[in-house]
Amino acid sequence: MNAEETPDFSVLAKDGLARLGKLSMDRHALDTPTFMPVGTRGAVRTLTALDLEELEADIILGNTYHLMLRPGVEVIQEKGGLHQFTGWNRLILTDSGGYQIFSLEPDVDDKGATFKSTYDGSLHRLTPQDAVDIQCGLGADIQMALDVCPPLPSEKSVIETAVVRTKLWAEDARKHFLFKRDKEGFSNAQFGIVQGGLDLTLRRISGEQIVEIGFDGYAIGGLSVGESRSEMIEPMDASIRTLPADRPRYFMGLGDPAGLVEAVNLGVDMFDCVWPTRLARHGTALTNTGRINLGAARYARSDDPIDLSFPQSPASHWSRGYLRHLLAVGEPAAARLLTLHNLAWLFDMMRRMRESISTGTFQEFRKEILDIWG
Amino acid sequence: MNAEETPDFSVLAKDGLARLGKLSMDRHALDTPTFMPVGTRGAVRTLTALDLEELEADIILGNTYHLMLRPGVEVIQEKGGLHQFTGWNRLILTDSGGYQIFSLEPDVDDKGATFKSTYDGSLHRLTPQDAVDIQCGLGADIQMALDVCPPLPSEKSVIETAVVRTKLWAEDARKHFLFKRDKEGFSNAQFGIVQGGLDLTLRRISGEQIVEIGFDGYAIGGLSVGESRSEMIEPMDASIRTLPADRPRYFMGLGDPAGLVEAVNLGVDMFDCVWPTRLARHGTALTNTGRINLGAARYARSDDPIDLSFPQSPASHWSRGYLRHLLAVGEPAAARLLTLHNLAWLFDMMRRMRESISTGTFQEFRKEILDIWG
Repeated sequence: MNAEETPDFSVLAKDGLARLGKLSMDRHALDTPTFMPVGTRGAVRTLTALDLEELEADIILGNTYHLMLRPGVEVIQEKGGLHQFTGWNRLILTDSGGYQIFSLEPDVDDKGATFKSTYDGSLHRLTPQDAVDIQCGLGADIQMALDVCPPLPSEKSVIETAVVRTKLWAEDARKHFLFKRDKEGFSNAQFGIVQGGLDLTLRRISGEQIVEIGFDGYAIGGLSVGESRSEMIEPMDASIRTLPADRPRYFMGLGDPAGLVEAVNLGVDMFDCVWPTRLARHGTALTNTGRINLGAARYARSDDPIDLSFPQSPASHWSRGYLRHLLAVGEPAAARLLTLHNLAWLFDMMRRMRESISTGTFQEFRKEILDIWG
Repeated sequence: MNAEETPDFSVLAKDGLARLGKLSMDRHALDTPTFMPVGTRGAVRTLTALDLEELEADIILGNTYHLMLRPGVEVIQEKGGLHQFTGWNRLILTDSGGYQIFSLEPDVDDKGATFKSTYDGSLHRLTPQDAVDIQCGLGADIQMALDVCPPLPSEKSVIETAVVRTKLWAEDARKHFLFKRDKEGFSNAQFGIVQGGLDLTLRRISGEQIVEIGFDGYAIGGLSVGESRSEMIEPMDASIRTLPADRPRYFMGLGDPAGLVEAVNLGVDMFDCVWPTRLARHGTALTNTGRINLGAARYARSDDPIDLSFPQSPASHWSRGYLRHLLAVGEPAAARLLTLHNLAWLFDMMRRMRESISTGTFQEFRKEILDIWG
């Protein structure tokens, strides 16, 4: 595969702006729109790589910030990278570490960020070049350029500075990545990130700057951080309009069904979020009629499975009553079964969404999802 | 199957006193000596019924005390019993609840025990007849007669009173069980329990009394409660000598390899213990060279699986280094993988033990285990 075309990406069908695509890399190929479960610390919480294989997950996300501190990138590199370490053979996308770091109130300058570890308080410095080296060490198939991700709401000047630094960092990150890729000959990909807060002009400027640098794919960052869905739509749209049609588009940190259909409706291809797995650990199951809290006493005597209309659930062997009992007495199997169920349900929803795009019925599908989840 | 011969049990081979047996019930047949994982609250902690099926477990134990309080026997009965509720289709043995109750300092008399729930402090009364009814409600294939189980060490008078009451309760329990079995025509089994502390005479007396009443199988209770292995051997032997050769013998609460070979060496057929699963949750793995604490820093860079000589482990897809990492960062998958591994290892050890009995090499096997685990 030509490194200039990594990942190989083709749009197979469109329905309005919604795209059905194929993303291919050396290790694995997948259909988009796709959802990436989050494996924060080298595992999707409660699951193993073999569980994810059975769920037919195509790509998972690893958190650079957590992995660089525990067990440390040198340990994972010595083991042959994150795939070898975790036993997962399909695709891995790593974030740059920026998102976690910005929750730690770091010292930021034009060259990088300095922050304190949440594990032991030790001081760390992360530059865009470091983030490239670390993600190469982790062996990510797709890595992210380090960006400046301010919280929302922020002063306009904060967002402006973030856009400027995100561009400077993106230049450093891309230059360093291309230098390494040319020298070492690997075929991994690097995505750039568009910032700009809720400001449509800043979104456009940031998008144009990142596209001008040129990446293998593009992410929309700095959204889905607490603002409402209606606040999110326009800045997302303004970001997408700057992006080339022939490269994959990744909206960071979104996983709820209504948000997913709205983002796909604007032309997004890839998503990640802790939402389905975190809900699972709190006893909430996703179903075709909405979310249900299985910890509630009213399910204690239910013989029905989680979702009668979704018999292919990995948890369909058990009743709501049994799962409610496991939750009530704190049995760890409950969190795992609900995690398996929620991911299976969400993967199935993504599959139905792709099908609706290919058959030209995406708007009907979108309405159906918004009626339940909007 | 004739209810008088439930479970159907035959000794297929002997090596010294060690027995290779076949225990058959309507639902499932298994080879003895057998180990029963403990599913305290309707699940072996971290696992599901399907996990246990993949491990080829034959029989699991459910704790009557916990299940009668949460979710309550009437809930489980309404669901069609513990098999239906948990999705487990092989055998279930339930304890009588006595063991847990005796840790709560109950008021005991010749007819039963009164105790406070650990869940909400509410007052409960349990008679031998109640214990039968509850275990019938749970749908246990094998149920245990309610016994008086004093801690060790105890005054001789305490042990004597326990033996007397255990006999009185056993009479009540057996009478009630046979009445129900005749009336309702089920083919489930009831085992009696021998008490007597560390006193060999009381062990013999208790054993003779329980055998005189006549049960479908016999358990040795009140041992493996903190005394040393050498203190345990003689009272176990004294108990076993009173038991009929043609009925299964169950030693309660034992699961370490050295203890298992010593008990099998005296003619025991069945075991249960939280030992392998509790160790797993604390990061300790059983291997062919002994136990190892995978949480230790020295495993951080190990590429080896838990046990190179046990490639059939369900955790062999991962390195000690990865499992150590999961333990270090508190990922729940670690406890599950170690639970699967420890049970698989112990089941394999039981299989090798049965093989050694059938080939007349049990003493070599016993020595090998005692050299590592003794």
